[in-house]
Amino acid sequence: MSIHPFDSAIELAHEAPDRWHGRTSEDYWNMVSPYGGVTAGVMMQAMLRHPERRGTPLSFTLNFLAPIERGEFVVDTELVRANRNSQHWAVRLAQGGKVLAQAIAICAARRETWGKVEAARPEVPPAEQCAVAPPRKPDGFLQRYEFRIVRGKPFAVNEDSLSHVWVADNPPRPLDFASLTALCDSFLPRIFLHRPDFVPIGTVSINIYFHAGPDALARQGAAPLLAVAQAQAFSDGHFDHHGHVWSTDGTLLATTQQLVWYKE
Amino acid sequence: MSIHPFDSAIELAHEAPDRWHGRTSEDYWNMVSPYGGVTAGVMMQAMLRHPERRGTPLSFTLNFLAPIERGEFVVDTELVRANRNSQHWAVRLAQGGKVLAQAIAICAARRETWGKVEAARPEVPPAEQCAVAPPRKPDGFLQRYEFRIVRGKPFAVNEDSLSHVWVADNPPRPLDFASLTALCDSFLPRIFLHRPDFVPIGTVSINIYFHAGPDALARQGAAPLLAVAQAQAFSDGHFDHHGHVWSTDGTLLATTQQLVWYKE
Repeated sequence: MSIHPFDSAIELAHEAPDRWHGRTSEDYWNMVSPYGGVTAGVMMQAMLRHPERRGTPLSFTLNFLAPIERGEFVVDTELVRANRNSQHWAVRLAQGGKVLAQAIAICAARRETWGKVEAARPEVPPAEQCAVAPPRKPDGFLQRYEFRIVRGKPFAVNEDSLSHVWVADNPPRPLDFASLTALCDSFLPRIFLHRPDFVPIGTVSINIYFHAGPDALARQGAAPLLAVAQAQAFSDGHFDHHGHVWSTDGTLLATTQQLVWYKE
Repeated sequence: MSIHPFDSAIELAHEAPDRWHGRTSEDYWNMVSPYGGVTAGVMMQAMLRHPERRGTPLSFTLNFLAPIERGEFVVDTELVRANRNSQHWAVRLAQGGKVLAQAIAICAARRETWGKVEAARPEVPPAEQCAVAPPRKPDGFLQRYEFRIVRGKPFAVNEDSLSHVWVADNPPRPLDFASLTALCDSFLPRIFLHRPDFVPIGTVSINIYFHAGPDALARQGAAPLLAVAQAQAFSDGHFDHHGHVWSTDGTLLATTQQLVWYKE
Protein backbone atom coordinates (compact mmCIF):
# COMPACT_ATOMS: atom_id res chain seq x y z
CA MET A 1 0.00 0.00 0.00
CA SER A 2 1.45 3.34 -0.99
CA ILE A 3 1.62 6.25 1.41
CA HIS A 4 -1.29 8.73 1.21
CA PRO A 5 -0.28 12.08 -0.34
CA PHE A 6 -1.41 13.90 2.82
CA ASP A 7 0.89 11.75 4.94
CA SER A 8 3.76 12.51 2.58
CA ALA A 9 2.93 16.21 2.71
CA ILE A 10 2.99 16.37 6.54
CA GLU A 11 6.01 14.08 6.96
CA LEU A 12 8.51 15.67 9.31
CA ALA A 13 11.99 14.70 10.49
CA HIS A 14 12.54 15.53 14.15
CA GLU A 15 15.64 17.43 15.21
CA ALA A 16 15.34 17.16 18.99
CA PRO A 17 14.20 18.84 21.03
CA ASP A 18 11.95 21.34 19.21
CA ARG A 19 12.73 21.52 15.52
CA TRP A 20 11.11 19.66 12.63
CA HIS A 21 12.18 19.46 8.99
CA GLY A 22 9.67 19.13 6.17
CA ARG A 23 9.30 19.73 2.46
CA THR A 24 6.49 21.25 0.41
CA SER A 25 4.34 18.82 -1.57
CA GLU A 26 3.39 19.21 -5.22
CA ASP A 27 0.22 17.26 -4.44
CA TYR A 28 -1.01 20.13 -2.26
CA TRP A 29 0.36 23.03 -4.30
CA ASN A 30 -1.88 26.09 -4.79
CA MET A 31 -0.78 28.71 -7.32
CA VAL A 32 2.11 30.55 -5.60
CA SER A 33 2.50 28.50 -2.41
CA PRO A 34 1.23 25.38 -0.67
CA TYR A 35 -2.49 25.09 0.08
CA GLY A 36 -2.96 26.83 3.47
CA GLY A 37 -4.69 23.77 4.90
CA VAL A 38 -1.66 21.58 4.38
CA THR A 39 0.56 24.18 6.03
CA ALA A 40 -1.87 24.20 8.96
CA GLY A 41 -1.78 20.39 8.96
CA VAL A 42 2.03 20.34 8.99
CA MET A 43 2.21 22.74 11.94
CA MET A 44 -0.49 20.79 13.80
CA GLN A 45 1.38 17.56 13.07
CA ALA A 46 4.66 18.93 14.51
CA MET A 47 2.84 19.71 17.76
CA LEU A 48 1.00 16.37 17.78
CA ARG A 49 4.22 14.42 17.28
CA HIS A 50 6.13 16.30 19.97
CA PRO A 51 7.14 13.84 22.71
CA GLU A 52 5.95 16.27 25.38
CA ARG A 53 2.50 16.77 23.89
CA ARG A 54 -0.35 15.69 26.20
CA GLY A 55 -4.08 15.81 25.50
CA THR A 56 -5.72 16.55 22.17
CA PRO A 57 -6.12 19.80 20.21
CA LEU A 58 -8.65 22.24 21.56
CA SER A 59 -7.83 25.55 19.87
CA PHE A 60 -5.52 26.31 16.96
CA THR A 61 -4.90 29.70 15.35
CA LEU A 62 -2.56 30.17 12.43
CA ASN A 63 -1.52 33.40 10.76
CA PHE A 64 0.07 33.28 7.30
CA LEU A 65 2.90 35.82 7.08
CA ALA A 66 4.21 35.39 3.55
CA PRO A 67 4.19 32.82 0.73
CA ILE A 68 6.07 29.57 1.36
CA GLU A 69 8.33 28.61 -1.52
CA ARG A 70 8.85 25.19 -3.01
CA GLY A 71 11.34 23.09 -1.07
CA GLU A 72 12.43 22.53 2.48
CA PHE A 73 11.13 24.29 5.56
CA VAL A 74 11.61 24.05 9.31
CA VAL A 75 8.93 24.05 11.98
CA ASP A 76 9.82 25.14 15.52
CA THR A 77 7.52 24.00 18.33
CA GLU A 78 7.60 25.65 21.75
CA LEU A 79 5.71 24.33 24.75
CA VAL A 80 5.14 27.74 26.30
CA ARG A 81 3.31 26.45 29.34
CA ALA A 82 2.01 23.12 30.64
CA ASN A 83 -0.75 23.12 33.23
CA ARG A 84 -2.23 20.06 34.90
CA ASN A 85 -4.84 19.45 32.18
CA SER A 86 -3.77 21.69 29.33
CA GLN A 87 -0.79 22.79 27.28
CA HIS A 88 -0.08 26.02 25.44
CA TRP A 89 2.05 25.88 22.32
CA ALA A 90 3.60 28.33 19.88
CA VAL A 91 4.58 26.98 16.46
CA ARG A 92 6.45 28.72 13.67
CA LEU A 93 7.28 27.67 10.14
CA ALA A 94 10.31 29.21 8.45
CA GLN A 95 12.41 29.02 5.30
CA GLY A 96 15.94 30.43 5.20
CA GLY A 97 15.49 31.84 8.69
CA LYS A 98 12.38 33.85 7.72
CA VAL A 99 9.18 33.09 9.61
CA LEU A 100 6.37 32.52 7.10
CA ALA A 101 3.61 31.21 9.38
CA GLN A 102 2.99 31.44 13.11
CA ALA A 103 0.46 29.59 15.24
CA ILE A 104 -0.66 29.40 18.84
CA ALA A 105 -2.51 26.36 20.06
CA ILE A 106 -3.97 24.66 23.11
CA CYS A 107 -4.10 20.94 23.84
CA ALA A 108 -6.20 19.63 26.71
CA ALA A 109 -7.47 16.49 28.33
CA ARG A 110 -11.13 16.06 27.43
CA ARG A 111 -13.40 15.11 30.32
CA GLU A 112 -17.09 14.32 30.72
CA THR A 113 -19.30 17.27 31.63
CA TRP A 114 -22.77 18.59 31.00
CA GLY A 115 -23.01 19.29 27.30
CA LYS A 116 -25.22 20.74 24.61
CA VAL A 117 -24.78 21.36 20.91
CA GLU A 118 -26.52 24.57 20.01
CA ALA A 119 -25.45 24.92 16.39
CA ALA A 120 -27.97 23.32 14.05
CA ARG A 121 -26.76 20.87 11.45
CA PRO A 122 -28.54 21.68 8.18
CA GLU A 123 -30.83 19.08 6.65
CA VAL A 124 -29.02 17.81 3.60
CA PRO A 125 -29.19 14.61 1.54
CA PRO A 126 -26.56 12.01 2.47
CA ALA A 127 -23.24 12.37 0.67
CA GLU A 128 -23.79 9.31 -1.51
CA GLN A 129 -26.88 10.98 -3.02
CA CYS A 130 -24.94 14.13 -3.95
CA ALA A 131 -22.90 14.46 -7.14
CA VAL A 132 -19.15 14.96 -6.90
CA ALA A 133 -18.25 18.41 -8.26
CA PRO A 134 -15.89 18.31 -11.24
CA PRO A 135 -12.38 19.48 -10.26
CA ARG A 136 -12.01 23.23 -10.69
CA LYS A 137 -8.38 22.80 -11.74
CA PRO A 138 -6.43 20.07 -13.47
CA ASP A 139 -3.76 19.80 -10.77
CA GLY A 140 -2.75 20.93 -7.29
CA PHE A 141 -4.52 20.59 -3.96
CA LEU A 142 -8.07 20.74 -5.37
CA GLN A 143 -7.45 17.20 -6.68
CA ARG A 144 -6.85 16.09 -3.11
CA TYR A 145 -10.41 16.78 -1.98
CA GLU A 146 -13.72 15.47 -3.20
CA PHE A 147 -16.43 18.12 -2.95
CA ARG A 148 -20.17 17.46 -3.17
CA ILE A 149 -21.89 20.83 -3.25
CA VAL A 150 -25.37 20.87 -1.73
CA ARG A 151 -25.82 24.64 -1.45
CA GLY A 152 -23.80 27.60 -2.80
CA LYS A 153 -22.84 27.74 -6.46
CA PRO A 154 -19.14 28.56 -6.98
CA PHE A 155 -18.22 31.60 -9.08
CA ALA A 156 -21.75 32.90 -9.23
CA VAL A 157 -23.84 35.64 -7.65
CA ASN A 158 -25.67 33.77 -4.88
CA GLU A 159 -28.19 35.45 -2.58
CA ASP A 160 -25.73 34.90 0.27
CA SER A 161 -22.43 33.08 0.81
CA LEU A 162 -23.86 30.24 2.91
CA SER A 163 -22.65 26.89 1.59
CA HIS A 164 -23.27 23.26 2.50
CA VAL A 165 -20.64 20.93 1.09
CA TRP A 166 -19.72 17.30 1.69
CA VAL A 167 -15.94 17.10 1.62
CA ALA A 168 -13.52 14.19 1.87
CA ASP A 169 -9.84 13.52 1.36
CA ASN A 170 -9.07 12.11 -2.08
CA PRO A 171 -8.06 9.33 -2.03
CA PRO A 172 -10.02 8.55 1.14
CA ARG A 173 -8.01 8.68 4.38
CA PRO A 174 -9.16 8.03 7.96
CA LEU A 175 -9.71 11.34 9.73
CA ASP A 176 -7.21 12.55 12.34
CA PHE A 177 -6.49 15.94 13.89
CA ALA A 178 -3.95 16.88 11.22
CA SER A 179 -6.33 16.15 8.35
CA LEU A 180 -9.28 17.78 10.13
CA THR A 181 -7.12 20.89 10.55
CA ALA A 182 -6.36 20.85 6.83
CA LEU A 183 -10.01 20.25 5.92
CA CYS A 184 -10.94 23.38 7.88
CA ASP A 185 -9.25 25.41 5.15
CA SER A 186 -10.99 23.63 2.27
CA PHE A 187 -14.01 25.98 2.19
CA LEU A 188 -14.41 27.88 -1.05
CA PRO A 189 -13.33 31.48 -0.41
CA ARG A 190 -16.64 33.25 0.24
CA ILE A 191 -16.03 36.00 -2.30
CA PHE A 192 -16.49 33.41 -5.06
CA LEU A 193 -20.07 32.90 -3.90
CA HIS A 194 -20.82 36.56 -4.56
CA ARG A 195 -18.75 37.32 -7.62
CA PRO A 196 -18.61 35.35 -10.86
CA ASP A 197 -15.03 36.26 -11.80
CA PHE A 198 -11.76 35.30 -10.22
CA VAL A 199 -10.34 37.81 -7.73
CA PRO A 200 -6.89 37.33 -6.20
CA ILE A 201 -7.31 36.23 -2.56
CA GLY A 202 -5.21 34.79 0.26
CA THR A 203 -6.08 33.55 3.75
CA VAL A 204 -4.24 35.58 6.39
CA SER A 205 -5.60 33.95 9.56
CA ILE A 206 -7.45 30.75 10.41
CA ASN A 207 -8.84 29.76 13.78
CA ILE A 208 -10.20 26.33 14.73
CA TYR A 209 -11.96 25.11 17.89
CA PHE A 210 -12.12 21.33 18.20
CA HIS A 211 -15.36 20.18 19.81
CA ALA A 212 -14.84 16.42 19.69
CA GLY A 213 -12.17 13.97 20.72
CA PRO A 214 -10.28 11.13 19.03
CA ASP A 215 -13.21 8.70 19.41
CA ALA A 216 -15.46 10.86 17.23
CA LEU A 217 -12.70 11.18 14.64
CA ALA A 218 -12.13 7.41 14.65
CA ARG A 219 -15.89 6.80 14.21
CA GLN A 220 -15.85 9.10 11.18
CA GLY A 221 -13.08 7.22 9.41
CA ALA A 222 -12.72 8.30 5.80
CA ALA A 223 -16.38 9.22 5.21
CA PRO A 224 -17.28 12.70 3.89
CA LEU A 225 -17.65 15.56 6.38
CA LEU A 226 -20.38 18.16 6.10
CA ALA A 227 -18.79 21.61 5.87
CA VAL A 228 -20.99 24.67 6.42
CA ALA A 229 -19.76 28.25 6.16
CA GLN A 230 -20.91 31.82 5.66
CA ALA A 231 -19.17 35.18 5.47
CA GLN A 232 -19.99 37.93 7.95
CA ALA A 233 -18.46 40.89 6.13
CA PHE A 234 -16.38 41.95 3.13
CA SER A 235 -14.77 45.33 3.74
CA ASP A 236 -11.65 47.33 2.91
CA GLY A 237 -9.76 44.41 1.37
CA HIS A 238 -10.58 41.58 3.80
CA PHE A 239 -13.49 39.24 4.44
CA ASP A 240 -14.15 36.59 7.06
CA HIS A 241 -16.18 33.46 7.28
CA HIS A 242 -17.52 31.34 10.11
CA GLY A 243 -17.81 27.61 9.56
CA HIS A 244 -18.93 24.33 11.09
CA VAL A 245 -17.57 20.87 10.33
CA TRP A 246 -19.97 18.00 11.06
CA SER A 247 -19.34 14.27 11.09
CA THR A 248 -21.57 11.94 9.10
CA ASP A 249 -23.35 10.92 12.30
CA GLY A 250 -24.14 14.55 13.16
CA THR A 251 -21.39 15.33 15.67
CA LEU A 252 -20.03 18.88 15.58
CA LEU A 253 -16.31 18.21 15.16
CA ALA A 254 -15.02 21.76 14.76
CA THR A 255 -16.00 25.37 14.40
CA THR A 256 -13.67 27.52 12.37
CA GLN A 257 -13.29 31.05 11.16
CA GLN A 258 -10.87 32.71 8.86
CA LEU A 259 -9.89 36.09 7.55
CA VAL A 260 -9.01 36.42 3.89
CA TRP A 261 -7.32 39.19 1.94
CA TYR A 262 -8.84 40.07 -1.43
CA LYS A 263 -7.62 42.42 -4.11
CA GLU A 264 -10.58 44.52 -5.14
CA MET B 1 -10.42 65.82 34.32
CA SER B 2 -9.32 62.60 35.92
CA ILE B 3 -7.91 59.74 33.90
CA HIS B 4 -10.42 57.05 32.85
CA PRO B 5 -9.93 53.75 34.74
CA PHE B 6 -9.44 51.91 31.43
CA ASP B 7 -6.62 54.26 30.48
CA SER B 8 -5.02 53.65 33.89
CA ALA B 9 -5.43 49.90 33.46
CA ILE B 10 -3.72 49.82 30.06
CA GLU B 11 -0.98 52.33 30.95
CA LEU B 12 2.40 50.97 29.95
CA ALA B 13 5.96 52.18 30.40
CA HIS B 14 8.11 51.47 27.37
CA GLU B 15 11.50 49.81 27.81
CA ALA B 16 12.85 50.10 24.26
CA PRO B 17 12.84 48.39 21.95
CA ASP B 18 10.23 45.71 22.66
CA ARG B 19 9.31 45.52 26.34
CA TRP B 20 6.47 47.22 28.18
CA HIS B 21 5.83 47.42 31.91
CA GLY B 22 2.33 47.55 33.37
CA ARG B 23 0.40 46.85 36.53
CA THR B 24 -2.90 45.11 37.19
CA SER B 25 -5.86 47.33 37.97
CA GLU B 26 -8.30 46.83 40.85
CA ASP B 27 -10.93 48.55 38.72
CA TYR B 28 -10.87 45.65 36.27
CA TRP B 29 -10.32 42.80 38.75
CA ASN B 30 -12.32 39.60 38.27
CA MET B 31 -12.25 37.00 41.06
CA VAL B 32 -8.76 35.42 40.82
CA SER B 33 -7.16 37.54 38.09
CA PRO B 34 -7.78 40.59 35.91
CA TYR B 35 -10.81 40.62 33.61
CA GLY B 36 -9.63 38.91 30.40
CA GLY B 37 -10.77 41.85 28.31
CA VAL B 38 -8.44 44.26 30.06
CA THR B 39 -5.55 41.85 29.58
CA ALA B 40 -6.44 41.71 25.89
CA GLY B 41 -6.64 45.52 25.87
CA VAL B 42 -3.20 45.83 27.50
CA MET B 43 -1.59 43.51 24.95
CA MET B 44 -3.33 45.28 22.08
CA GLN B 45 -2.19 48.62 23.50
CA ALA B 46 1.46 47.52 23.66
CA MET B 47 1.31 46.66 19.96
CA LEU B 48 -0.58 49.87 19.08
CA ARG B 49 1.95 52.03 20.91
CA HIS B 50 4.97 50.34 19.35
CA PRO B 51 6.90 52.92 17.29
CA GLU B 52 7.19 50.45 14.41
CA ARG B 53 3.47 49.69 14.24
CA ARG B 54 1.85 50.57 10.90
CA GLY B 55 -1.79 50.20 9.91
CA THR B 56 -4.67 49.27 12.19
CA PRO B 57 -5.63 45.97 13.84
CA LEU B 58 -7.14 43.38 11.56
CA SER B 59 -6.91 40.11 13.49
CA PHE B 60 -6.06 39.47 17.13
CA THR B 61 -5.97 36.10 18.91
CA LEU B 62 -5.11 35.77 22.57
CA ASN B 63 -4.68 32.57 24.56
CA PHE B 64 -4.78 32.74 28.36
CA LEU B 65 -2.15 30.41 29.84
CA ALA B 66 -2.54 30.89 33.60
CA PRO B 67 -3.98 33.41 36.07
CA ILE B 68 -2.25 36.79 36.27
CA GLU B 69 -1.54 37.86 39.85
CA ARG B 70 -1.99 41.30 41.36
CA GLY B 71 0.93 43.60 40.66
CA GLU B 72 3.43 44.28 37.92
CA PHE B 73 3.73 42.49 34.61
CA VAL B 74 5.79 42.82 31.45
CA VAL B 75 4.56 42.68 27.88
CA ASP B 76 6.97 41.72 25.11
CA THR B 77 6.07 42.74 21.57
CA GLU B 78 7.73 41.15 18.55
CA LEU B 79 7.26 42.37 15.01
CA VAL B 80 7.69 38.96 13.41
CA ARG B 81 7.29 40.18 9.85
CA ALA B 82 6.45 43.41 8.08
CA ASN B 83 5.11 43.27 4.53
CA ARG B 84 4.29 46.24 2.33
CA ASN B 85 0.74 46.63 3.62
CA SER B 86 0.59 44.42 6.70
CA GLN B 87 2.46 43.50 9.86
CA HIS B 88 2.51 40.29 11.87
CA TRP B 89 3.03 40.53 15.62
CA ALA B 90 3.53 38.15 18.53
CA VAL B 91 2.81 39.52 22.01
CA ARG B 92 3.41 37.86 25.37
CA LEU B 93 2.52 38.92 28.88
CA ALA B 94 4.63 37.57 31.76
CA GLN B 95 5.12 37.87 35.50
CA GLY B 96 8.33 36.71 37.15
CA GLY B 97 9.54 35.34 33.83
CA LYS B 98 6.50 33.09 33.38
CA VAL B 99 4.39 33.64 30.27
CA LEU B 100 0.72 33.97 31.29
CA ALA B 101 -0.84 35.11 28.01
CA GLN B 102 0.25 34.90 24.39
CA ALA B 103 -1.21 36.60 21.35
CA ILE B 104 -0.66 36.76 17.61
CA ALA B 105 -2.00 39.69 15.65
CA ILE B 106 -2.11 41.33 12.26
CA CYS B 107 -2.17 45.04 11.48
CA ALA B 108 -2.89 46.26 7.97
CA ALA B 109 -3.55 49.31 5.88
CA ARG B 110 -7.26 49.47 5.09
CA ARG B 111 -8.08 50.30 1.47
CA GLU B 112 -11.26 50.83 -0.51
CA THR B 113 -12.63 47.75 -2.24
CA TRP B 114 -15.93 46.17 -3.17
CA GLY B 115 -17.71 45.41 0.08
CA LYS B 116 -20.77 43.74 1.55
CA VAL B 117 -21.95 43.10 5.08
CA GLU B 118 -23.67 39.76 5.17
CA ALA B 119 -24.27 39.42 8.90
CA ALA B 120 -27.67 40.80 9.88
CA ARG B 121 -27.93 43.29 12.71
CA PRO B 122 -30.88 42.28 14.87
CA GLU B 123 -33.79 44.68 15.22
CA VAL B 124 -33.60 46.04 18.74
CA PRO B 125 -34.87 49.19 20.46
CA PRO B 126 -32.30 51.99 20.73
CA ALA B 127 -30.08 51.83 23.82
CA GLU B 128 -31.75 54.81 25.48
CA GLN B 129 -35.05 52.90 25.52
CA CYS B 130 -33.49 49.87 27.25
CA ALA B 131 -33.04 49.63 31.01
CA VAL B 132 -29.53 49.40 32.44
CA ALA B 133 -29.07 46.01 34.11
CA PRO B 134 -28.27 46.21 37.82
CA PRO B 135 -24.61 45.32 38.48
CA ARG B 136 -24.20 41.61 39.08
CA LYS B 137 -21.44 42.26 41.62
CA PRO B 138 -20.62 45.11 43.99
CA ASP B 139 -17.06 45.60 42.74
CA GLY B 140 -14.57 44.63 40.06
CA PHE B 141 -14.73 44.90 36.29
CA LEU B 142 -18.51 44.49 36.01
CA GLN B 143 -18.79 48.03 37.39
CA ARG B 144 -16.77 49.23 34.43
CA TYR B 145 -19.42 48.30 31.88
CA GLU B 146 -23.00 49.34 31.51
CA PHE B 147 -25.14 46.52 30.13
CA ARG B 148 -28.64 46.90 28.68
CA ILE B 149 -29.95 43.43 28.05
CA VAL B 150 -32.42 43.16 25.17
CA ARG B 151 -32.41 39.38 24.77
CA GLY B 152 -31.01 36.55 26.93
CA LYS B 153 -31.73 36.40 30.63
CA PRO B 154 -28.58 35.84 32.74
CA PHE B 155 -28.44 32.85 35.08
CA ALA B 156 -31.59 31.29 33.67
CA VAL B 157 -32.57 28.43 31.40
CA ASN B 158 -33.14 30.21 28.08
CA GLU B 159 -34.27 28.39 24.93
CA ASP B 160 -30.84 29.17 23.44
CA SER B 161 -27.79 31.24 24.36
CA LEU B 162 -28.37 34.01 21.81
CA SER B 163 -28.11 37.41 23.47
CA HIS B 164 -28.52 41.01 22.33
CA VAL B 165 -26.95 43.50 24.71
CA TRP B 166 -26.12 47.19 24.51
CA VAL B 167 -22.77 47.66 26.22
CA ALA B 168 -20.70 50.73 27.00
CA ASP B 169 -17.68 51.67 29.07
CA ASN B 170 -18.59 53.06 32.47
CA PRO B 171 -17.87 55.91 32.83
CA PRO B 172 -18.32 56.61 29.10
CA ARG B 173 -15.10 56.66 27.07
CA PRO B 174 -14.57 57.28 23.33
CA LEU B 175 -14.06 53.97 21.55
CA ASP B 176 -10.60 52.99 20.33
CA PHE B 177 -9.03 49.69 19.30
CA ALA B 178 -7.84 48.88 22.83
CA SER B 179 -11.29 49.39 24.36
CA LEU B 180 -13.03 47.59 21.49
CA THR B 181 -10.69 44.65 22.11
CA ALA B 182 -11.64 44.68 25.79
CA LEU B 183 -15.36 45.00 24.99
CA CYS B 184 -15.11 41.85 22.86
CA ASP B 185 -14.63 39.90 26.10
CA SER B 186 -17.59 41.51 27.90
CA PHE B 187 -20.14 38.96 26.68
CA LEU B 188 -21.81 36.97 29.46
CA PRO B 189 -20.29 33.47 29.41
CA ARG B 190 -22.85 31.49 27.41
CA ILE B 191 -23.20 28.74 30.00
CA PHE B 192 -25.01 31.24 32.25
CA LEU B 193 -27.75 31.52 29.63
CA HIS B 194 -28.45 27.80 29.94
CA ARG B 195 -27.88 27.12 33.61
CA PRO B 196 -29.29 29.06 36.56
CA ASP B 197 -26.44 28.39 38.98
CA PHE B 198 -22.88 29.60 38.97
CA VAL B 199 -20.35 27.24 37.40
CA PRO B 200 -16.61 28.00 37.53
CA ILE B 201 -15.49 29.14 34.06
CA GLY B 202 -12.48 30.77 32.42
CA THR B 203 -11.82 31.99 28.89
CA VAL B 204 -8.88 30.14 27.34
CA SER B 205 -8.83 31.72 23.88
CA ILE B 206 -10.35 34.79 22.25
CA ASN B 207 -10.18 35.75 18.61
CA ILE B 208 -11.23 39.08 17.09
CA TYR B 209 -11.51 40.22 13.47
CA PHE B 210 -11.80 43.99 13.05
CA HIS B 211 -14.07 44.93 10.16
CA ALA B 212 -13.91 48.72 10.45
CA GLY B 213 -11.25 51.38 10.65
CA PRO B 214 -10.51 54.31 12.94
CA ASP B 215 -13.15 56.53 11.27
CA ALA B 216 -15.97 54.18 12.29
CA LEU B 217 -14.60 54.01 15.84
CA ALA B 218 -14.38 57.81 16.00
CA ARG B 219 -17.97 58.15 14.75
CA GLN B 220 -19.10 55.79 17.52
CA GLY B 221 -17.53 57.84 20.30
CA ALA B 222 -18.72 56.73 23.72
CA ALA B 223 -22.18 55.53 22.67
CA PRO B 224 -23.30 51.98 23.53
CA LEU B 225 -22.34 49.14 21.17
CA LEU B 226 -24.72 46.35 20.26
CA ALA B 227 -23.14 43.02 21.23
CA VAL B 228 -24.67 39.82 19.83
CA ALA B 229 -23.41 36.33 20.64
CA GLN B 230 -24.41 32.69 20.65
CA ALA B 231 -22.67 29.46 21.63
CA GLN B 232 -22.13 26.70 19.10
CA ALA B 233 -21.35 23.83 21.45
CA PHE B 234 -20.72 22.88 25.07
CA SER B 235 -18.76 19.63 25.28
CA ASP B 236 -16.18 17.86 27.42
CA GLY B 237 -15.38 20.88 29.59
CA HIS B 238 -15.25 23.68 27.01
CA PHE B 239 -17.74 25.81 25.12
CA ASP B 240 -17.38 28.44 22.44
CA HIS B 241 -19.33 31.43 21.29
CA HIS B 242 -19.45 33.48 18.13
CA GLY B 243 -20.23 37.17 18.43
CA HIS B 244 -20.79 40.39 16.51
CA VAL B 245 -20.16 43.92 17.74
CA TRP B 246 -22.20 46.63 15.99
CA SER B 247 -21.88 50.39 16.17
CA THR B 248 -24.93 52.52 16.94
CA ASP B 249 -25.20 53.47 13.28
CA GLY B 250 -25.27 49.81 12.22
CA THR B 251 -21.64 49.27 11.18
CA LEU B 252 -20.20 45.82 11.90
CA LEU B 253 -17.09 46.76 13.90
CA ALA B 254 -15.86 43.31 14.88
CA THR B 255 -16.64 39.62 14.83
CA THR B 256 -15.30 37.61 17.72
CA GLN B 257 -15.21 34.09 19.03
CA GLN B 258 -13.93 32.58 22.18
CA LEU B 259 -13.38 29.24 23.84
CA VAL B 260 -14.18 28.93 27.53
CA TRP B 261 -13.31 26.25 30.04
CA TYR B 262 -16.09 25.20 32.43
CA LYS B 263 -15.98 22.92 35.40
CA GLU B 264 -18.94 20.59 35.07
